[in-house]
Amino acid sequence: MKKKLNIGLIGCGFMGRTHSNAYRKVSNFFDLDYKPVLKTICDRNEEKAKKFADQWDFESIETDWRKLLERDDIDVIDICTPNNLHAEMAIAAAEAGKMIICEKPLAMNTAEGKAMVDAVEKTNVANLVSYNYRRIPAVTLAKNLIDQGKLGKIYHYRANFLQDWTIATDLPQGGDGLWRLDAKEAGSGVTGDLLAHCIDTAIWLNGPIKEVTAMTETFVKERQSVTSGKVEPVKIDDACAFLARFENGSLAIFESTRYARGHKALYTFEINGQNASIAWDLHDLHRLSWFDHRDEGQTRGWRSIHVTDGEHPYMDKWWVPGLAIGYEHSFVHQVADFLEGLATGTPAAPTFRDALMTQAVCDAVLSSAKNKTWETVQYE
Amino acid sequence: MKKKLNIGLIGCGFMGRTHSNAYRKVSNFFDLDYKPVLKTICDRNEEKAKKFADQWDFESIETDWRKLLERDDIDVIDICTPNNLHAEMAIAAAEAGKMIICEKPLAMNTAEGKAMVDAVEKTNVANLVSYNYRRIPAVTLAKNLIDQGKLGKIYHYRANFLQDWTIATDLPQGGDGLWRLDAKEAGSGVTGDLLAHCIDTAIWLNGPIKEVTAMTETFVKERQSVTSGKVEPVKIDDACAFLARFENGSLAIFESTRYARGHKALYTFEINGQNASIAWDLHDLHRLSWFDHRDEGQTRGWRSIHVTDGEHPYMDKWWVPGLAIGYEHSFVHQVADFLEGLATGTPAAPTFRDALMTQAVCDAVLSSAKNKTWETVQYE
Amino acid sequence: MKKKLNIGLIGCGFMGRTHSNAYRKVSNFFDLDYKPVLKTICDRNEEKAKKFADQWDFESIETDWRKLLERDDIDVIDICTPNNLHAEMAIAAAEAGKMIICEKPLAMNTAEGKAMVDAVEKTNVANLVSYNYRRIPAVTLAKNLIDQGKLGKIYHYRANFLQDWTIATDLPQGGDGLWRLDAKEAGSGVTGDLLAHCIDTAIWLNGPIKEVTAMTETFVKERQSVTSGKVEPVKIDDACAFLARFENGSLAIFESTRYARGHKALYTFEINGQNASIAWDLHDLHRLSWFDHRDEGQTRGWRSIHVTDGEHPYMDKWWVPGLAIGYEHSFVHQVADFLEGLATGTPAAPTFRDALMTQAVCDAVLSSAKNKTWETVQYE
Amino acid sequence: MKKKLNIGLIGCGFMGRTHSNAYRKVSNFFDLDYKPVLKTICDRNEEKAKKFADQWDFESIETDWRKLLERDDIDVIDICTPNNLHAEMAIAAAEAGKMIICEKPLAMNTAEGKAMVDAVEKTNVANLVSYNYRRIPAVTLAKNLIDQGKLGKIYHYRANFLQDWTIATDLPQGGDGLWRLDAKEAGSGVTGDLLAHCIDTAIWLNGPIKEVTAMTETFVKERQSVTSGKVEPVKIDDACAFLARFENGSLAIFESTRYARGHKALYTFEINGQNASIAWDLHDLHRLSWFDHRDEGQTRGWRSIHVTDGEHPYMDKWWVPGLAIGYEHSFVHQVADFLEGLATGTPAAPTFRDALMTQAVCDAVLSSAKNKTWETVQYE
Repeated sequence: MKKKLNIGLIGCGFMGRTHSNAYRKVSNFFDLDYKPVLKTICDRNEEKAKKFADQWDFESIETDWRKLLERDDIDVIDICTPNNLHAEMAIAAAEAGKMIICEKPLAMNTAEGKAMVDAVEKTNVANLVSYNYRRIPAVTLAKNLIDQGKLGKIYHYRANFLQDWTIATDLPQGGDGLWRLDAKEAGSGVTGDLLAHCIDTAIWLNGPIKEVTAMTETFVKERQSVTSGKVEPVKIDDACAFLARFENGSLAIFESTRYARGHKALYTFEINGQNASIAWDLHDLHRLSWFDHRDEGQTRGWRSIHVTDGEHPYMDKWWVPGLAIGYEHSFVHQVADFLEGLATGTPAAPTFRDALMTQAVCDAVLSSAKNKTWETVQYE
Repeated sequence: MKKKLNIGLIGCGFMGRTHSNAYRKVSNFFDLDYKPVLKTICDRNEEKAKKFADQWDFESIETDWRKLLERDDIDVIDICTPNNLHAEMAIAAAEAGKMIICEKPLAMNTAEGKAMVDAVEKTNVANLVSYNYRRIPAVTLAKNLIDQGKLGKIYHYRANFLQDWTIATDLPQGGDGLWRLDAKEAGSGVTGDLLAHCIDTAIWLNGPIKEVTAMTETFVKERQSVTSGKVEPVKIDDACAFLARFENGSLAIFESTRYARGHKALYTFEINGQNASIAWDLHDLHRLSWFDHRDEGQTRGWRSIHVTDGEHPYMDKWWVPGLAIGYEHSFVHQVADFLEGLATGTPAAPTFRDALMTQAVCDAVLSSAKNKTWETVQYE
Repeated sequence: MKKKLNIGLIGCGFMGRTHSNAYRKVSNFFDLDYKPVLKTICDRNEEKAKKFADQWDFESIETDWRKLLERDDIDVIDICTPNNLHAEMAIAAAEAGKMIICEKPLAMNTAEGKAMVDAVEKTNVANLVSYNYRRIPAVTLAKNLIDQGKLGKIYHYRANFLQDWTIATDLPQGGDGLWRLDAKEAGSGVTGDLLAHCIDTAIWLNGPIKEVTAMTETFVKERQSVTSGKVEPVKIDDACAFLARFENGSLAIFESTRYARGHKALYTFEINGQNASIAWDLHDLHRLSWFDHRDEGQTRGWRSIHVTDGEHPYMDKWWVPGLAIGYEHSFVHQVADFLEGLATGTPAAPTFRDALMTQAVCDAVLSSAKNKTWETVQYE
Repeated sequence: MKKKLNIGLIGCGFMGRTHSNAYRKVSNFFDLDYKPVLKTICDRNEEKAKKFADQWDFESIETDWRKLLERDDIDVIDICTPNNLHAEMAIAAAEAGKMIICEKPLAMNTAEGKAMVDAVEKTNVANLVSYNYRRIPAVTLAKNLIDQGKLGKIYHYRANFLQDWTIATDLPQGGDGLWRLDAKEAGSGVTGDLLAHCIDTAIWLNGPIKEVTAMTETFVKERQSVTSGKVEPVKIDDACAFLARFENGSLAIFESTRYARGHKALYTFEINGQNASIAWDLHDLHRLSWFDHRDEGQTRGWRSIHVTDGEHPYMDKWWVPGLAIGYEHSFVHQVADFLEGLATGTPAAPTFRDALMTQAVCDAVLSSAKNKTWETVQYE
């Protein structure tokens, strides 16, 4: 008999949906000791909460997240709110003894992030940050290949996350769907929203980043604010690029923008080692590009691995070889790993502490862009 | 308040899973009048049925499909069994007044198929055959573009469905996972299993096929039978290719095999019209290739449409532009369209009658391969 | 000191240019015993011949090809004329003791082809048919891989040659640039022009074709004739597709058309063996796709081999790895191999006799399309 | 009657071959007033010069480049030597009144480059630097599209040039084939060799670069010297990456390395504008990727333009649509444009003055990498 794990989810937006879907599906595909239950959805807007509960079969709703923390029938607090609320909620949840799954980025900045880490480590509650792209099977396969030592010494890492949805100057900022454009709620622009993903994957695959030099740009200087109704300065970074050196001696370039016409959500990375190279692209997420110099010369070439075989990470749980899964499945895998971590006692990563490293890199990047200097990343 | 629609699903195999998943998800993403309920799973193997019910949250189980038909609390019979059982079950279900969703191919042959069509039309029950690939958004988009008249006169159609999973000579035939290799249960090999998909899409996109000439081959002549334990002749077609002429004057080639090393489930089609061409590939199912001769000469080229925008078919229901969905979503769309068909009174296609056309082409193909002649397709 | 080999080239068209270029370049890149000299260009139109001689540095011109054969200072007759002139010219050249390079297809039909083979074998003159695609490095590499036994038993072969340049109904037929549309000069349409290439490669890579069933179509029934000025029936095949069985037991599909919108000169082939598969595409001619099932499972995938390394066929003669060569180089390689064949005494292929096999398949294809029957290829 | 233009070419290496080939071919394909004549090849190694002359049909040889300058029968001096010789030779050639074609990069540094510009402008001789990639038809097409205003405001530029040929630690440095690894002859490593190409294209397409911040790395610290026979420190940059801001406000990232396993000569660039984006890749050099946001939404996607049509730049001179040309053709186009510049009086670009801008960016990049600061490019 599976143990039930009651979920209290805060936030009815895009991420609220991806997480709800993951909780609903995980037990259909993974055979785990725990079975999540969609207990309560929480949103300050009651009507939205009700509609969401109805759509996703949540048992109840709350409109005050602090009440959610007081309830005994909630095991996990899942934070899917704008970034400026993460720290307060997570710290309170930890103090209430709840397990926590928090959307990325961990916090608005490293200082907040440290307080969150302290809170969960003091109360010893299970905690996870939702850097979901680690659990795209092709990305997990990349990690496995690196861990198997197949690449040898690493020389280069490059990653970018390119979008094109904010080019129109009449797009407003702030409000429900557009809080990512409002610095008050988002903290930063593409750095925290998109580069944070690239950095999390990079650290996971290639170890800590030592130093960075960055530039940022805000192409559209003013936008209508949804909340105030007035035209206000845009304070987020529309684009950010940085050079980096990893502790293992490899060089890196990172770039993100919402002004790359033609790219909807193109997250790519490539890593070049002495013996082999790996590349991946979110737009064709079920493929991994792999080049192995040890292959026979005449037939050496980049392989396009269709990551849908039973021996590929997570794929024995789904359909048959050749049939692709999509974006949402990364969240199902995340929940599965979180539940397995509870059962085995080995926590799924990235924990709050792991995610703090990404925060530190983001802070160094933003600081470098401001000061036009190289910055050493301050992990402690 | 949504109307509940109780599902009785027969068969716990691969298709049982894809259908169960679709029923569970459809209401989370589509706002429809009907909400399916996973009422009963039926399998002659009680243990399997119990385990499946537990995994998918079915309310109850049955081991005798005839009892399922007698129950008042079942609205829809969903047939996910081997092909040789489709006709008997569907005809009985129709007589019991149940709506029917039946896995493809419709039947073992045209004669059986006609009896099934007669049964559902006589009792006037809603009916649908699960040719799910119509509802991959990129494929639906192809249909829309054709219906908008963008291609002009059609000259060529080509399709293939290539796999490589039966090359090993020690793979047995028959039994639970391998009934597709046993002619008694499957009727034919790649013709009914794979080419049927190609033919269904082709007729949908390009109209009826007039005549065909085909060849088939069985590369491995004998295999161990899982059911008998003995080495027995292989009676299915391992590979089948045919030439065809459509009623609209276009020419076609079709090919399917399970001996194409390197292809797991490569279903591709291409259609060439006077003004534009379309191509698609199941291995990268969220992309549609599009060439429009009316584009300016200097920049004319094949476009790779990443079919993930809100204005693409079905995609407003899922995530955000750039984030791919997968194979399983075609079944969710199928259920959504079936439910919408109930609400609007315009049945979702392909109905049994629609699917009978595909059956007629399959029969002509197999007959042609046997007789080494051109065969005219007998639709009536 | 290199031996000079005097070339007498007949025909100033497209092929006259590709051959002239090859003779001019071969000695710059290949270190061979023979050095070709552009001695004489022959065209019945004197003005064209003069202009061509000037452009390509031919030493002299002729307007009567029979005079060219009488000259002692000509070693090689290179026939780049419309197909209907091949047989007469080649037989006369053989009788005059000249070496012969003849554009493909060998002849208008097998009967003519046999007479040509008899002529060159009787007089024992060096002879070669210009099926140039064998000598695209990626295609030669495919041949090497097959000869190394890397594919194992072959199951499938598929090839097509798709163009889109005759869709416009106001395109005339016949005359200098358009003789390929005139059955009197071309013999057939896409069968002799395009499928002949596919068949030549197929036989080279996979051995003889045993039997075929074909269909052809002429989409535009009448066109203005350039020579007569009148609207006349179109007698060539605009499109042709056929199924085939090879002598080694593999199945094949072939297709060619000039009505595939979006394809300029898309010649592709794919061959599926027990252990490995190969695919190639003229549009990206310096790449070979290679799948090897013996690769480790987790990283197995189609490789895109960029055929530009020094160890790839012919490529040590050109630039450095990564720098692509183009279409015209296949003719340079052809001349290099012809010259090397003269030096070593092992003739370069395909000889007239080799090319006769392709002619026999073309004849069987056209006959099958006419009679709507399977036809056994008559090689003798 | 065409005017003859006598070429005196210095250097028998890789570039000597590409230039010789271009001079030999240009008149076969382009109808120009001038016809180049391969008059003299000059190399300090007499044997190499003789062999090269024999292979390429040069009329004579020289072993002292200063003698070449004294000859009245030489019109053009073509400098294909290591970088450290460019300035001395070019200045002397200018003073001798010769036209000059000089391999890239212009010079060892900006100071040298300025002296060269002064020399050619003072003597008013025709001059060109061989940044050949401008004349790959796909790249020229990109330029045309930008000049037509199709992109609108530019937001982003990214380029890289990735190779993998120096990963082996036992590769020596210096000497005939390896002078690019010796700082004394090459000046810098990938910056002058590879990034110079990226920068030249970038300035041509997107205007001047204002400021940069860079990092460089030498992964292998010591190598055997071919000239001294001893193990010596490696003084070139193995890898270099930099961030940049263009004067038009767009942001850029550039990267180059010889340690990117799997990439032989992967030069790519991408440019994102308000309305459209362009991308290109040297490994598939006859394709241009094009995204136009003004396309209808449902069929919007990246187009792969096969740049082989008669209306594409330079392509009316070659074969027929669909048939690719290669790397070497960029040099033929360069010579054609140089000759046309002579005829029309409008010099072909990049002149020495144009190329000096690229030199200035390279200098800023190397300086920035050394000082870990942002550097403003000093064009004057």
